[in-house]
Amino acid sequence: MTSRAHPVDGGDLSPATDGGDLPIKSSPHRHKVGIPPKQNMFKDFMYTFKETFFHDDPLRDFKDQPKSKQFMLGLQSVFPVFDWGRNYNLKKFRGDLISGLTIASLCIPQDIGYAKLANLDPKYGLYSSFVPPLVYACMGSSRDIAIGPVAVVSLLLGTLLQAEIDPNTNPDEYLRLAFTATFFAGITEAALGFFRLGFLIDFLSHAAVVGFMGGAAITIALQQLKGFLGIKKFTKKTDMVAVLDSVFSSAHHGWNWQTILIGASFLTFLLTSKFIGKKSKKLFWVPAIAPLISVIISTFFVYITRADKQGVQIVKHLDQGINPSSFHQIYFSGDNLAKGIRIGVVAGMVALTEAVAIGRTFAAMKDYQIDGNKEMVALGMMNVVGSMSSCYVATGSFSRSAVNFMAGCHTAVSNIIMSIVVLLTLLFLTPLFKYTPNAILAAIIINAVIPLIDIQAAILIFKVDKLDFIACMGAFFGVIFVSVEIGLLIAVSISFAKILLQVTRPRTAVLGNIPRTSVYRNIQQYPEATMVPGVLTIRVDSAIYFSNSNYVRERILRWLHEEEEKVKAASLPRIQFLIIEMSPVTDIDTSGIHALEDLYKSLQKRDIQLILANPGPLVIGKLHLSHFADMLGQDHIYLTVADAVEACCPKLSEEV
Amino acid sequence: MTSRAHPVDGGDLSPATDGGDLPIKSSPHRHKVGIPPKQNMFKDFMYTFKETFFHDDPLRDFKDQPKSKQFMLGLQSVFPVFDWGRNYNLKKFRGDLISGLTIASLCIPQDIGYAKLANLDPKYGLYSSFVPPLVYACMGSSRDIAIGPVAVVSLLLGTLLQAEIDPNTNPDEYLRLAFTATFFAGITEAALGFFRLGFLIDFLSHAAVVGFMGGAAITIALQQLKGFLGIKKFTKKTDMVAVLDSVFSSAHHGWNWQTILIGASFLTFLLTSKFIGKKSKKLFWVPAIAPLISVIISTFFVYITRADKQGVQIVKHLDQGINPSSFHQIYFSGDNLAKGIRIGVVAGMVALTEAVAIGRTFAAMKDYQIDGNKEMVALGMMNVVGSMSSCYVATGSFSRSAVNFMAGCHTAVSNIIMSIVVLLTLLFLTPLFKYTPNAILAAIIINAVIPLIDIQAAILIFKVDKLDFIACMGAFFGVIFVSVEIGLLIAVSISFAKILLQVTRPRTAVLGNIPRTSVYRNIQQYPEATMVPGVLTIRVDSAIYFSNSNYVRERILRWLHEEEEKVKAASLPRIQFLIIEMSPVTDIDTSGIHALEDLYKSLQKRDIQLILANPGPLVIGKLHLSHFADMLGQDHIYLTVADAVEACCPKLSEEV
Repeated sequence: MTSRAHPVDGGDLSPATDGGDLPIKSSPHRHKVGIPPKQNMFKDFMYTFKETFFHDDPLRDFKDQPKSKQFMLGLQSVFPVFDWGRNYNLKKFRGDLISGLTIASLCIPQDIGYAKLANLDPKYGLYSSFVPPLVYACMGSSRDIAIGPVAVVSLLLGTLLQAEIDPNTNPDEYLRLAFTATFFAGITEAALGFFRLGFLIDFLSHAAVVGFMGGAAITIALQQLKGFLGIKKFTKKTDMVAVLDSVFSSAHHGWNWQTILIGASFLTFLLTSKFIGKKSKKLFWVPAIAPLISVIISTFFVYITRADKQGVQIVKHLDQGINPSSFHQIYFSGDNLAKGIRIGVVAGMVALTEAVAIGRTFAAMKDYQIDGNKEMVALGMMNVVGSMSSCYVATGSFSRSAVNFMAGCHTAVSNIIMSIVVLLTLLFLTPLFKYTPNAILAAIIINAVIPLIDIQAAILIFKVDKLDFIACMGAFFGVIFVSVEIGLLIAVSISFAKILLQVTRPRTAVLGNIPRTSVYRNIQQYPEATMVPGVLTIRVDSAIYFSNSNYVRERILRWLHEEEEKVKAASLPRIQFLIIEMSPVTDIDTSGIHALEDLYKSLQKRDIQLILANPGPLVIGKLHLSHFADMLGQDHIYLTVADAVEACCPKLSEEV
Repeated sequence: MTSRAHPVDGGDLSPATDGGDLPIKSSPHRHKVGIPPKQNMFKDFMYTFKETFFHDDPLRDFKDQPKSKQFMLGLQSVFPVFDWGRNYNLKKFRGDLISGLTIASLCIPQDIGYAKLANLDPKYGLYSSFVPPLVYACMGSSRDIAIGPVAVVSLLLGTLLQAEIDPNTNPDEYLRLAFTATFFAGITEAALGFFRLGFLIDFLSHAAVVGFMGGAAITIALQQLKGFLGIKKFTKKTDMVAVLDSVFSSAHHGWNWQTILIGASFLTFLLTSKFIGKKSKKLFWVPAIAPLISVIISTFFVYITRADKQGVQIVKHLDQGINPSSFHQIYFSGDNLAKGIRIGVVAGMVALTEAVAIGRTFAAMKDYQIDGNKEMVALGMMNVVGSMSSCYVATGSFSRSAVNFMAGCHTAVSNIIMSIVVLLTLLFLTPLFKYTPNAILAAIIINAVIPLIDIQAAILIFKVDKLDFIACMGAFFGVIFVSVEIGLLIAVSISFAKILLQVTRPRTAVLGNIPRTSVYRNIQQYPEATMVPGVLTIRVDSAIYFSNSNYVRERILRWLHEEEEKVKAASLPRIQFLIIEMSPVTDIDTSGIHALEDLYKSLQKRDIQLILANPGPLVIGKLHLSHFADMLGQDHIYLTVADAVEACCPKLSEEV
């Protein structure tokens, strides 16, 4: 038995099988803990580098291909249109045409309203639905995303720009700064993708995004009260207190009942159509075209009744013609350059978060792969080109993408269709929007942002993780009661704090043997698991790095202390072996090794032997390099906890 | 067999035992994955809170104690002197007396030199070795640490202060800012401890600290060339290029050969004594008292020869008397308050890093526990009190603490002894330092900082982790070639970047069955492990959070893709089951659950079944709450990989 217990020269696996000869196991011997072959330093570094930045192996298809094929693949990789374009057919076009027309009817009224959120003329909203979708259609890899201005980014951009330049007194400078910010938003997005740093946007946690979006939706809806109630004097702040104060202080003379009547009736119409669309998936087109119908009817109604003379505010003027060039308007020097970069980086990151989330969601639904980094380059390029053609920040719109998906789009051609419809609108139809009441646009925006308030998701977050819920609520209330930036800052800070907590406070668990098996599991999860007398088995559930090495050491000593007190109280045999289950410890650094050394020394003083079970390839390699494995002794490292316990047992009995 | 494979109604553990009846396992049945009882929300939150901030359970001893005892324990906890003081005896005092005298002889010349690094009068160095050690002796819990000014913090403080106020033109303001910074360094340290945020200093990785300390040591040694060579005009910058330029440009007329002779001979003496001390541990006192001997001999020599008239620079004047109060000199308003806070926070954190590392090292050697957070409060209070009594930032000195330890100290009384010796020096001996040549102080400092250049540690870091080594070298060269702050900034940034990488890029591994066992291990580590045909087993080595959920999903799909290609090439049966070993997945959040859902949908399209093995208590709870467990099916969750594989096998054979 003693010889068996030695890890090198053999032995059995399960303590339950002790003393029984198992005919089935022809050559019962214990496996040693494998030490992976030593890697060449450069190779090792390249491997880590590749796994970090190129984990999706983007060049996989290029291997072993002739030069001409490689060129074609490269072209397809930058412009996926060359890939899917070759298999394009009429059947696909039919789907794309229908979905393109549907999202166009949805986007035109939204665009006009969103541009106002960014304190820009309505035409810039339409411009931004013309150029960027065309660029994206050539470069993007998502088949379902619908590109254009979106509510949250418009609001964020409007708030950030307004803090720098007053849009009423300095409209030209304001516009130039908007283009500058758009340019740098594009550069930021493209750079993140190009340098394969796309994972940075993953640092905004889902919970924080849910809270931020919900708060932004409410803020946007509150902003619409201006148009909805026909108020002329309205606060520039976005926090709830200021807005409601502004609304109620103007209640007596500032509200316009005709406006309210128009707004309320069409909002009811929109909500009803949304309800119909939810009831039957086949009727998805009802809510999709309802906004355009509302615009047409209400415009006609105002034109007939001349309600604008009764104080109903209308769009009044919408320039005819396509996007003028705006390259010369971008600031490339001076104070405004720095401001533009700062605003662009923030707006670009938020826009990216939304677009990437949409891309992933629909890709998972249809099971195709999206290369996140390539996607970012596409989104970035479309904003860079957009900034030079009078567009402001465009990204993927969740509501329009969902309609696009349901209308049966097959490829990015639906974006091209939409873009053409917007082009035609800009060329010929803009004068028709003259009498469109602002209240309708407000109703359309309120209707559009309601789904951003995702109460279901918040409930799930509450159930699953309380800390996440705090992050979610922090972002939500930050946006509502302070400002969009502060809400975003709270969201990012809490997300980071959570990562830091996760890294510094890894979990540890005491393991017990599950009866009649050689399996050791957390005794809190498996109350039937029993601890072996004289042996304490602890699992450390994380890589041991400088950020947590001291915590791990201290926590293990506390487990030991608690267990020793229990043992003393029950007058059981004293603990002689401390087994650390290292399976989840995927890596260790010098601080971690020092912590193990310190632990080893502490245990030595108390006459407790330290034993490691199943250190991973990296860990065992480093333990050998640092000579800790020699200090501990090779016979104190086992393949499994069961092996280690079996090895301890005979030694235990000697003393008892 | 099929019924056996069902996880609920029984079955065996190891696929290797299929078909063989094992008499030893009396009741062969498969265990279900345990779902821990649902916790009360408040309890759950408190548990997390406690594990995060009170993992060491500091109030453990207070439980079930009468009020009077609790008061006593509370007092002892704030002032550990009431704890160890009661068992203090003459034998302990003997050890403390010897070690106290030894570190006093070491600290007096060092203090005078270190104060110069901070651009302060030498007396402030001595002041800082008088008050802070007394405070620490009452409140601190380390028995071996020696308190006083240290080289790196002095240099850092000097650099930071000098950037704000010129010490030559505005000495009074400079001094006031120094006290202000010291005050806020103390507040920072105490606050970190009080709010149990001590783990924040763990974010400075060991590698970064090694690099930073090494760089700072070289910078400090280079600064000493001024005193060592007797140069009068010396650059204020600390980077290597500026310093060497300053040294060589003054080579022709600025160097003083008498100074060099004195400095070089005593440096040789100091290094020799250090060598002797290393050779024989019993002679540790030789290097410990060598500095004081050097000071005495050289001072006497200069006094006799009047070498100061030959251009040998001397201390000239050292005020007699103890620390004056400096409370009124601290800035509590104005611009200088903000500067003081900023400098104090940085200096306090660095000082804390050094002291805590020392405390932990020696505590591990003698196996006693140090409460990191309490320790920080003690260190903070000592600097707050120090700032009001003309001291600058004091902390634990590594070199003096090592001497203290080797000289056989038992308690913090050795610090009191040292403090008394410094007091006597201040009262009576300061005039004797008048003729001490600056070159001796330079030699003492050079000798003292050499051990900070820890080449062994750097080599180990290089061997163990290449990324860590880059952090180490970044900090090192940052300090040497730019400045102390930049080096520190590089160290912190790289440490953080490493944490972020660790969190976003968790490891994954393909598992194989180790022959004749039911154990599944990484096939890269165990080349003998074999994969079961038709089944792909992947282990995810980290909690799945928002920061890595997309990576995990994409990486798993890539493993699958690669494996499918291999299988196709070898015309093996196609992969029908994807088993995810969840043992190391200690936690999951909503983003992680979404990633699993997306993965599940992708696999469904490809007709591959997703199976989870051994989800932990938190994970299984959350999977149930979010209904993912129902979506997946209870019979797709197993206790072990072996169980899961066994369950797949019969289903596989049906198709083949």
